[in-house]
Amino acid sequence: MTDRPKTPMLDRVHVPADLKALSDRELRHLADELRAETISAVSVTGGHLGAGLGVVELTVAIHAVFDTPRDKLIWDVGHQCYPHKILTGRRERIRTLRMKDGLSGFTKRSESPFDPFGAAHSSTSISAALGFAAARDLGGDAGDAIAVIGDGAMSAGMAYEAMNNAGHLKKRLFVVLNDNEMSIAPPVGAMSAYLTRLYSGAPFQELKAVAKGAVSLLPEPLQEGARRAKEMLKGIAVGGTLFEELGFSYVGPIDGHDLDQLLPLLRAVKARATGPMLIHVITRKGKGYAPAERAADKGHATAKFDVVTGAQVKAASNAPGYTKVFAQSLIREAEADNRIVAVTAAMPDGTGLNLFAERFPRRCFDVGIAEQHAVTFAAGMAAGGMKPFCALYSTFLQRGYDQVVHDVAIQRLPVRFAIDRAGLVGADGATHAGAFDVAFLANLPGFVVMAAADEAELVHMVATAAAHDAGPIAFRYPRGDGTGVEMPERGVPLEIGRGRIIAEGGRVAILSFGTRLAEVMMAREALAARGLAPTVADARFAKPLDRELILRLAAEHEALICVEEGAVGGFGSHVAQLLAEEGVFDRGLKFRSMVLPDTFIDQMSPEDMYAVAGMNAPLIEAKVLEVLGVAVAGARSRA
Amino acid sequence: MTDRPKTPMLDRVHVPADLKALSDRELRHLADELRAETISAVSVTGGHLGAGLGVVELTVAIHAVFDTPRDKLIWDVGHQCYPHKILTGRRERIRTLRMKDGLSGFTKRSESPFDPFGAAHSSTSISAALGFAAARDLGGDAGDAIAVIGDGAMSAGMAYEAMNNAGHLKKRLFVVLNDNEMSIAPPVGAMSAYLTRLYSGAPFQELKAVAKGAVSLLPEPLQEGARRAKEMLKGIAVGGTLFEELGFSYVGPIDGHDLDQLLPLLRAVKARATGPMLIHVITRKGKGYAPAERAADKGHATAKFDVVTGAQVKAASNAPGYTKVFAQSLIREAEADNRIVAVTAAMPDGTGLNLFAERFPRRCFDVGIAEQHAVTFAAGMAAGGMKPFCALYSTFLQRGYDQVVHDVAIQRLPVRFAIDRAGLVGADGATHAGAFDVAFLANLPGFVVMAAADEAELVHMVATAAAHDAGPIAFRYPRGDGTGVEMPERGVPLEIGRGRIIAEGGRVAILSFGTRLAEVMMAREALAARGLAPTVADARFAKPLDRELILRLAAEHEALICVEEGAVGGFGSHVAQLLAEEGVFDRGLKFRSMVLPDTFIDQMSPEDMYAVAGMNAPLIEAKVLEVLGVAVAGARSRA
Repeated sequence: MTDRPKTPMLDRVHVPADLKALSDRELRHLADELRAETISAVSVTGGHLGAGLGVVELTVAIHAVFDTPRDKLIWDVGHQCYPHKILTGRRERIRTLRMKDGLSGFTKRSESPFDPFGAAHSSTSISAALGFAAARDLGGDAGDAIAVIGDGAMSAGMAYEAMNNAGHLKKRLFVVLNDNEMSIAPPVGAMSAYLTRLYSGAPFQELKAVAKGAVSLLPEPLQEGARRAKEMLKGIAVGGTLFEELGFSYVGPIDGHDLDQLLPLLRAVKARATGPMLIHVITRKGKGYAPAERAADKGHATAKFDVVTGAQVKAASNAPGYTKVFAQSLIREAEADNRIVAVTAAMPDGTGLNLFAERFPRRCFDVGIAEQHAVTFAAGMAAGGMKPFCALYSTFLQRGYDQVVHDVAIQRLPVRFAIDRAGLVGADGATHAGAFDVAFLANLPGFVVMAAADEAELVHMVATAAAHDAGPIAFRYPRGDGTGVEMPERGVPLEIGRGRIIAEGGRVAILSFGTRLAEVMMAREALAARGLAPTVADARFAKPLDRELILRLAAEHEALICVEEGAVGGFGSHVAQLLAEEGVFDRGLKFRSMVLPDTFIDQMSPEDMYAVAGMNAPLIEAKVLEVLGVAVAGARSRA
Repeated sequence: MTDRPKTPMLDRVHVPADLKALSDRELRHLADELRAETISAVSVTGGHLGAGLGVVELTVAIHAVFDTPRDKLIWDVGHQCYPHKILTGRRERIRTLRMKDGLSGFTKRSESPFDPFGAAHSSTSISAALGFAAARDLGGDAGDAIAVIGDGAMSAGMAYEAMNNAGHLKKRLFVVLNDNEMSIAPPVGAMSAYLTRLYSGAPFQELKAVAKGAVSLLPEPLQEGARRAKEMLKGIAVGGTLFEELGFSYVGPIDGHDLDQLLPLLRAVKARATGPMLIHVITRKGKGYAPAERAADKGHATAKFDVVTGAQVKAASNAPGYTKVFAQSLIREAEADNRIVAVTAAMPDGTGLNLFAERFPRRCFDVGIAEQHAVTFAAGMAAGGMKPFCALYSTFLQRGYDQVVHDVAIQRLPVRFAIDRAGLVGADGATHAGAFDVAFLANLPGFVVMAAADEAELVHMVATAAAHDAGPIAFRYPRGDGTGVEMPERGVPLEIGRGRIIAEGGRVAILSFGTRLAEVMMAREALAARGLAPTVADARFAKPLDRELILRLAAEHEALICVEEGAVGGFGSHVAQLLAEEGVFDRGLKFRSMVLPDTFIDQMSPEDMYAVAGMNAPLIEAKVLEVLGVAVAGARSRA
């Protein structure tokens, strides 16, 4: 959108080792250029901007002080890695971020040796870094392990488990706590409040304080900045006890945008640390780019934008997004039933529950990045007589799976799971795909599992879930905008376990579960032109199955094709189990189950992803023709 | 085994409300009788003894002070609940513990209103209690919420997530930290060391210390024990900071076996607490029963025993247990390959890794009750060039599912998952069943998933996993003893994705995945007597499937029956998907997939469980006859 920034210093850096030749003063210049380059790149790609801007200096400092890739630098979540990618040999491709065949928006092992451990879900970095440290101490070829983790990610139990283990093992390990008081939303929880207390009270101008133990870590003959570092180490000793109690040495908090603080401190700890060390760094998300700093989400994720004005280029949409439809439907239900409460795990905006929280602040709980707790907390509320809706992305529900089984399903507690981002999700790639939820939920006794075929169906499914008190119930819906169908005044509970016929036809029946229905109907249109219009049904329920409907479709057609936005083991597998048990296969039935393929699909548009998955209208059409033995030239080509 | 103890005081207690009529002195008597009754009961049933003995006084005190069941008392894990069950109307049935149609060995909502939230997996209690507290504060009909959680369970991230949220919500909530320095094994981790520091230094005779904030909680006109309580509150103020930093008021540590301390303290906090409060109680697992106190595991789980001598009655076995076979096989592999390391999540004995740790102390990692971290820590070690074996029970692997997907599968890291307790497990009931692992693993791209048909196969699968560096691999095996097959000198890696024919036959092929093979072969024998001997094959792999074998079995038989110790969505579903895609169903095939039923099966013997599941030899035989349309009177009766 604008000319690329001038970056003479950055142009000299091809690999991190090149940083070793630069003076601290040059590194400061480099950081400025790296920031400009990051902004320029994201302006043309869109993506995660704020997090990367917040760690520009940290990125430069770590690569300047440590010896990557032999030293293992692990970015928690990974969405702050754009500056890191620019510095580690991927600058030329940085304007392909999150695009098909381009760079991933996260760290990724297959992309670079400088990404020793990929990420995208939060709070994994300490565990991974400790694994590298343990491997190194057993003779593995690795140097230091450095995890950079945000304060928001520290609310996850997994981070605590790793700290607890690291404090016990006492291995040399660096955890850089990147404290910006902001994950995607402002972080919640007692830990967050604690971290704030660690540096509250005085304005943050100079280095604020570095805790007691750090003094001994300081090397005597320091280069540039040493005197200043020494002074700061004599500064106010603040807190740190919580980390120290867990066996870490604590240093900080220091200003994460001041290389004159970062460089000497990292050099000091690198020279002297023996056990696990927590380095508390204060940064600002969106730092150095005014439109991001001004934004409520600090430029967390952005569309393409104009660098000068910050104005984002967003495509207009004709239909409401599923997330918003869910939130509005839930608000309507909650207006009529004060037992309805909502739980989110640090995703109030992503799940739409920010709208619910505005309307019902006391009935909405953001528990932090803590899916395990979210599920059982909801189960506890259900046992206490409430009607909890636990709204999670499909991929993050994986974090609470045992709690779904053990606390919800076994106890038959009526927790409602609103599963957003079901199916393939586009630019966030494989790590965010919602591929497995139907398989891992529909085999749990007593569960009801639904998928919305469109946004009107979603409204009814929210109502269905609100009305269903007999046990757990889940409904899934995709990322993005609806299909533009007419919306109902309000939701009407569906009959549990009843699907619906969408269109009658002959020879072939297509049984759709979820939003592929639109593609199925397009395929039907094309097939109708050949005189082969199939019957189309919307299953609505993967569990309980509509046995009557399915057996009738099987009996009345020569072929039955299931379509779902999920991996094998889910809806189609349950249908197959039913057909097998009922002896339908004994007599012969052209049965096919179209599921997501047995590969992780890298980032590209959802449309492209579904083409790769073989699940768009032309490929559904081709499947029907293939099953019927109708040869069509080119019908199998991927649209 | 011995006469029942005399329990005049306990005989007067039918519901906890009866405790209100007793003096503190009488409550002390009651506790002694409750301990004797617990020992007597477990001597005839076997089960979890040590944990219950450690909380006898705590059980009495909580029920005496709080108003259960309106106040919600939630026992973490729940295996310490036997004294609680005796006090809450289940005394008559206490000698049916863990038996078919008897009392569960854990808390269970369906069993009693005094069990407001069931458990069996660890570290869920704070989340659940917070859920009750939140429901109450929104108008739900509940009183106080009290979670009793062990120090071992505090290593789980879930407990931290709940504390973090509770400290933020500031709701009135009681967390009793039952600190016995012992979960199943001695607890590990920095938190455990921290807790020890909280009361180390001085011998534990009197009340040791109660932290600062607690003084204000003390009610003025106290009953019995008040003066003493006041004195103790003026005692040494020790630590507690970590919990206080997380927003809890901290009281303790106090002697959990001294009702003169417990009762006034609980009365005080009940009268005055406004926010979340942590009550740190020191107990001894196995307390008051010498054989348990002397045992290394403090009488954690016991067979039936003689009360006087403590001698346990154990059935002799002819075959080695799977767990031990796994451990010995892994040791042999590790002797030849020093890159092999092992990870357990607080179950060194249960997984057999205690043997591995004896042999290779530096290469074995007990990370605490921390499955999320265990998986990603293993992934980190794999990325660092090691060959990690992550040994977990099937049911606990659910805790690390997202890490399996996100950190292992997507990155194709060669983590080896040794999945113990696969299938139905007997006395531990539904909460410990390993029913879902094949379904939730086999649809992950790049995963190899095996099941051992017998203990010799397990040896080979350990070797297969050790040799497989291309990506993640899992092998599952059941609880209990092997089948007594001849054991190989050492393991030989299997060809990935190749099954084996066990016996040729006609008309019907049975494709077994796992240890049902023995039952299948018994069924085959009975069928052979009718001239209907089926072909029997052992699939070995659920992923990748042996396509050639399966398609041949389908082509050469009129019926193909899959058998597996898992829920729908797993092995049989993958076979069905293959058969569908290959058009096998088009031509007709009597296909059946025998899976675990769509119910949670309560505790009984594994044999009884598999009878309920329809998966023993007579029922497999019946299935074959049914598929072939051979009518046999009584063949479907459940053996």
